[in-house]
Amino acid sequence: MKKILLLGAGRSASSLIQYLLQHAPYEGWQITIGDINVDHLQATIADLEFAKAIVFDVHNEAQRAEEVRNADLVISLLPAIFHIEVARECMAQEKHLITASYVTPAFLDLHEEAQAKNLTILMESGLDPGIDHMSAMAVIRHIKEQGGEIVSFKSYTGGLVAPESDNNPWNYKFSWNPRNVVLAGQGTAKYIKNGEYKYIPYHQLFRRTDELYVEGYGHFDGYANRDSLSYREPYGLLNIPTMLRGTLRRKGYCTAWDVFVQLGMTDDSYDLEGVEQMTYRSFLEAFLPPASNEVQSLQQRLSSYLNLPVDGDVIAKLEWLGLFSDTPVDLLAATPAQVLEKLLVSKWKLEPGDKDMIVMQHLFEYELSGEQRELSSSLVVIGEDSVQTAMAKTVGLPVAILAKLLLQGKINHRGVVIPIHPELYEPVLEELKHYGIDFVEQERVIEKV
Amino acid sequence: MKKILLLGAGRSASSLIQYLLQHAPYEGWQITIGDINVDHLQATIADLEFAKAIVFDVHNEAQRAEEVRNADLVISLLPAIFHIEVARECMAQEKHLITASYVTPAFLDLHEEAQAKNLTILMESGLDPGIDHMSAMAVIRHIKEQGGEIVSFKSYTGGLVAPESDNNPWNYKFSWNPRNVVLAGQGTAKYIKNGEYKYIPYHQLFRRTDELYVEGYGHFDGYANRDSLSYREPYGLLNIPTMLRGTLRRKGYCTAWDVFVQLGMTDDSYDLEGVEQMTYRSFLEAFLPPASNEVQSLQQRLSSYLNLPVDGDVIAKLEWLGLFSDTPVDLLAATPAQVLEKLLVSKWKLEPGDKDMIVMQHLFEYELSGEQRELSSSLVVIGEDSVQTAMAKTVGLPVAILAKLLLQGKINHRGVVIPIHPELYEPVLEELKHYGIDFVEQERVIEKV
Repeated sequence: MKKILLLGAGRSASSLIQYLLQHAPYEGWQITIGDINVDHLQATIADLEFAKAIVFDVHNEAQRAEEVRNADLVISLLPAIFHIEVARECMAQEKHLITASYVTPAFLDLHEEAQAKNLTILMESGLDPGIDHMSAMAVIRHIKEQGGEIVSFKSYTGGLVAPESDNNPWNYKFSWNPRNVVLAGQGTAKYIKNGEYKYIPYHQLFRRTDELYVEGYGHFDGYANRDSLSYREPYGLLNIPTMLRGTLRRKGYCTAWDVFVQLGMTDDSYDLEGVEQMTYRSFLEAFLPPASNEVQSLQQRLSSYLNLPVDGDVIAKLEWLGLFSDTPVDLLAATPAQVLEKLLVSKWKLEPGDKDMIVMQHLFEYELSGEQRELSSSLVVIGEDSVQTAMAKTVGLPVAILAKLLLQGKINHRGVVIPIHPELYEPVLEELKHYGIDFVEQERVIEKV
Repeated sequence: MKKILLLGAGRSASSLIQYLLQHAPYEGWQITIGDINVDHLQATIADLEFAKAIVFDVHNEAQRAEEVRNADLVISLLPAIFHIEVARECMAQEKHLITASYVTPAFLDLHEEAQAKNLTILMESGLDPGIDHMSAMAVIRHIKEQGGEIVSFKSYTGGLVAPESDNNPWNYKFSWNPRNVVLAGQGTAKYIKNGEYKYIPYHQLFRRTDELYVEGYGHFDGYANRDSLSYREPYGLLNIPTMLRGTLRRKGYCTAWDVFVQLGMTDDSYDLEGVEQMTYRSFLEAFLPPASNEVQSLQQRLSSYLNLPVDGDVIAKLEWLGLFSDTPVDLLAATPAQVLEKLLVSKWKLEPGDKDMIVMQHLFEYELSGEQRELSSSLVVIGEDSVQTAMAKTVGLPVAILAKLLLQGKINHRGVVIPIHPELYEPVLEELKHYGIDFVEQERVIEKV
C-alpha cells in the first residue's frame, strides 16, 4: 500500500484526481486529498475506501507535518508560493514530492539534501512547464541521434477557448488564473536570434509578435516569454543561435491587449485614487491625456492617443468589454491591474458547457546531411467541458503519470529534477497519447546548405 | 562661537562653501568640511583659521559620532541615502540638521523625537525641492491674502546648459548626477487635472509633455514628475482642481529621449549579456527587432520600428551621440541604463568654461473679483563657470541662508520641517535676490467668470 497526499484540489486538479482514483485500486494506492475547500469532492469519493478528502490549511504547521508524515509521496498543486514549505517538510520527513511549478532558487537549495536522502523533488511536470520540456526533449534527442545540428528552436504554448465555444471578439476566455493573464509579460523578455541577444521591454512585447499556423486550427500570434535563455543548458542547446519561448493567442488579441499596456492599465504597483466612485469609463479617462476638444467621444480620444482606427477591430473589442461604459467598477480600493481583472473576469468567463483549448507548437530548424530542415511539432487539446478542461488534463495527467512511475520505482533521478530525461518523458508522452494528448509532426527541407 | 559641520563637498557644494567661508568671520562660525576627498579644498581654506577640511567616511561610525558631537549644526549634502544615519546621530546628540533632500518616511519617524528635543531637521531646502517650495508659497500666500481662489498650479524646474554654452543638438549637458537623469521618470506619474486624477506610465511620459515659454529664453518642454499630489496638503491647496509638478527640457529633447525609453535602454533592472564585446551599435541592435531586410541601415531599421523620419531631428541627435557607431562600450558588466549613461557622460559633459542654467516656472490660474487670472513666476539662473554652476548656487545658497537663520535663532519651527513657512522663505527669497536668484512675475486676466 502506497500513500499519496495530494495538496490542492482546485480547478486544475480535476483530471489529476480522476486519474489517481481510477488507478488507485490497481496500483494499491491510498489517496488523501487536502484543500481549504473539499466539499466538491465528497460526491466523488464518499464511497471509495481508498480515498479521503480533508480540509487542509497549508499555514497549519502541525497539520502539514502530520499529513506529510502519513504519506509516501506528496503532490502539490497549491499556489506556487506555498510549495517551498511543503518541500521542506518533505525533506525533513524524507518523502518524494511532485509539483507542476517552476524550480526557484529556494528549491535549488534543497537539491543536495534531497540527493543525500535518496529523494526526488520532481518539478515543472505539468503543461508549461512540463509537457513543453518533455515533447521538446523527445524531438531534440531524435534530431541529435540522426546527427542533426539544431540552429533554431522556438516553442509556444497557449491556454485558449475551443473554436466551438469561441463566441467573443477577443477569441479568448479564462481557463487559468486571471491575475496571471493580466500581469503576463511584465519585465523584459530576453531571447537569442542568430547569435545576438535580444531584449523586448514590456511596452513593446505585444507589438513584437510572431505569427504561427497550426494545421486545422488556423493562425495564432506568439509573444515572447520573459526567459527564453535559461533552458538552453538543460535542453543541451548551449550554443544554439536562435531560441525563443513564447505564449500563444488568437490573431488580433495581442494588438488589442497592447492598448491596456500602453495606457498603463496592467500596472499592479499602486492604488488608484477614488476607486469607490469609478466607472470603467472613468477608469479609462484616468489614463488618457485631458480632453482638448469637448466634442470628441472617448473612443475618438483613445483612438487618436494610441493611433488606432476609431472604427477598427481594436476599438470594437474594447466596446464589447464595456470599457467605455458607465458601469461602476464596484471595488473599494484597487490597483489598475485589479480593476482591469474585474472587467475581464466578468466577460471572459468559461461558461458551463464551454470547452477550452490548449495549443502548443515547437518549431525547429536544423542542419542534416547538407540540408537545412524545418520541423514543427504541434499539440491541440480540447477540453470536455468547463470542469474537465484541456488545461486540467494537460497540467494534471503528466503529474499523475510521473507520480505513478515514481511509486513504481521507475524514476531513479534524485534531487531536484525536471522531466528532461528519456526515463521520465518517454513513458509519459506515450501514456498521454491514450488521453488524446498527442503531437503532430511536420517536416520539410528548406534548402541545401 | 557656533560650529558648523558640513558633510559632502562635491560639485554641488561649491556655492554653499563659499557662502559659509564668507560669512564665518562676521557670524562667528567655526566650519568643518568633511568629505571622502577634500584635496580640492586645501588651497581655499589652508590659511583660514575658522575653517578646516577633514577626510570623512560616513560609514565610520566612530568618526561620525565624534564630528557630530563637536558641531552645533550639521549640514548634509551627502548622497541622499546617507542622510538618515547622519540624522539619527544628530538626534542622539541633540544637534540641528539641514539637507536639500526629500523627506522620506524614515525621516518622518524622527519628527516627534526632534520636536521633543527642541531640534530642527530642515529638509527640501535646496533648489528642487527647496526654492520651488519657497517661491510657490510666496505666490500662493499673496493670492490668498487678496482673496483669490487658485484653480490650477503647475510648476516646472530644469537644470540645463546656458544658451552661450549650448553647442549640441540635444541642447543639454549634465550639471547634476547623470545616473539620475538616465533613470528619471521611472514608475507612474500622477497628477490631477480639472478634478480628475491622471496617471502617465513611464513609456508615455516623454510623449505627453507640456510646452512652456520663458521670456527671453524661448520654449521648453515639461514632463510630469512622479508625484504631483502629495504637496497639495503642505501648500494648503488640498482641493485644487489642477496640479502638476514637472521637469523642464529644451524643445526636442523629450521626443528624442523617448527613443531610449521605447527601446528599453533606460532599464536598470538586469545585466546585459556579453557587454565586454559590445559596441554602441550592437547595444542598439539588441533592442531592435531582427533585421528582415539585409540592405536596410541601422538608422532605417530604428526609424521604421519607432515610426520616426529617418532624416529627422531625432535620428540626427542619436547620430551625434554615436549610438550607431562601432565605438566599444568598454565595460565588463552593465545594465542597459549603465551603458546609456556611459555614452551620455562622454558627450554631455559640462566643459571647463561652460555655463549651466537653471530654469523654473510656476504657472497659476486663479479667480479673483469675478475674473479668471493667470500668473507666471519664472526664474532663470546662469552659472559662472563649470564649478560655480547655477546648480551649485541654487542648491547651496538656500541651504546656507537657512543655516544662518537657524544659528541666529530666527527659525522656531521644530521637528522635520520644509521651507513652506513665511518665517523661513521670506528672508531666504529676499537674500537670494542679491545673488541673482530672482523671480519675474507676469500676470494677466484670462476672462471674466
